[in-house]
Amino acid sequence: MKVINLLVGGPTAEWPEALKKGQIKGPWIGADRGNLRLIKLGINPTVAIGDFDSMSTDELKVVKQHVKDVRTFPARKDFTDTELLLMCAIRDYDPQIIRIYGATGGRIDHFLSNLFMVLEPRFRKYAERVKLIDDKNSIGFYLPGKHLIHKEPDKKYLAFVPLGGMHVSLSHVEYPLDHHWIGFPRSYSSNEFIGDYAKFSFDQNIMCVIQSKD
Amino acid sequence: MKVINLLVGGPTAEWPEALKKGQIKGPWIGADRGNLRLIKLGINPTVAIGDFDSMSTDELKVVKQHVKDVRTFPARKDFTDTELLLMCAIRDYDPQIIRIYGATGGRIDHFLSNLFMVLEPRFRKYAERVKLIDDKNSIGFYLPGKHLIHKEPDKKYLAFVPLGGMHVSLSHVEYPLDHHWIGFPRSYSSNEFIGDYAKFSFDQNIMCVIQSKD
Repeated sequence: MKVINLLVGGPTAEWPEALKKGQIKGPWIGADRGNLRLIKLGINPTVAIGDFDSMSTDELKVVKQHVKDVRTFPARKDFTDTELLLMCAIRDYDPQIIRIYGATGGRIDHFLSNLFMVLEPRFRKYAERVKLIDDKNSIGFYLPGKHLIHKEPDKKYLAFVPLGGMHVSLSHVEYPLDHHWIGFPRSYSSNEFIGDYAKFSFDQNIMCVIQSKD
Repeated sequence: MKVINLLVGGPTAEWPEALKKGQIKGPWIGADRGNLRLIKLGINPTVAIGDFDSMSTDELKVVKQHVKDVRTFPARKDFTDTELLLMCAIRDYDPQIIRIYGATGGRIDHFLSNLFMVLEPRFRKYAERVKLIDDKNSIGFYLPGKHLIHKEPDKKYLAFVPLGGMHVSLSHVEYPLDHHWIGFPRSYSSNEFIGDYAKFSFDQNIMCVIQSKD
């Protein structure tokens, strides 16, 4: 499985422990100051993307010493940082799995941009490749159809979050549903796996699935 | 203006400074352990609601000593804690403003339950009274029509987050829009006030508006 990791600008407090310790292998694409953070962890990003406006000349020099491919965009642009990184990842690497770190915490408007990004027509078909990951949550996205997902060993809770109207069936979970109509975005929290996997199906829009722990 | 404050179970790290210092006046309605936290800050909640399953007998005794109105619900219930508190606030106090603290941070599924709560038919008409507040964000909700909102002095950024399809106009902001059609939930981040207020209008669904700071 070809995996790529993206680091965007959320607070480091929300990073998973493995990332704080620099233990997550690349390739990495970093946004703005995220590149400095990765370099300090001993990770040289494959690509660094950003406006780099908030960095000092010395800091930018460090990034350029450690990253061969630095791409500068204007601060006032039509895409969020996460969208720029995702476009780069898809076009240049065509990965099967795109793990996005730094997408949660701090500013809620930024988190919601990241959460709703896969609803954009240009990203929709890649939705199932995208995972937003922090220290307590792993957030995946699914297109209409039947799905089987596996329990992550360190997570306890399972939430189904329809991002638009849909008929939903859930099975192999604590609180199953059968062709249940949901008319608007809603978070069905605190469901749980009853074994190693769960099954679900739905007919339209995008389903966000969150595995989490306290 | 009749204000009521609700405290739900998100991590204290996300609380605004004024709450951490116990400086936010009541009345307060607290969920579960939130009541203990308020009591330690010198605040006696008006109502304490929860299953109280995770509390020791001694802890529950403390809550009962400080709160006259303790309402116990089973752990496996049809409503989230936030929904229970909101129903209690509306029915018993009919406040104009309902400030919800502890609604962000930690588990994303819980945050999304809180965010999407106002889309529920039973809560929809109260949407404009609800504010989710943490240390970096103030999140409000609006029903279709014309609106004027004021800049919060400590906030820099302004985001418009349509929670469903709508035609949107924005004015008195850095990035205006004119009858722009938005077909799905999306976060228009990093807009800014150009004065003390902004105006916006839209024709259907619910608009979430976030004022935030870094």
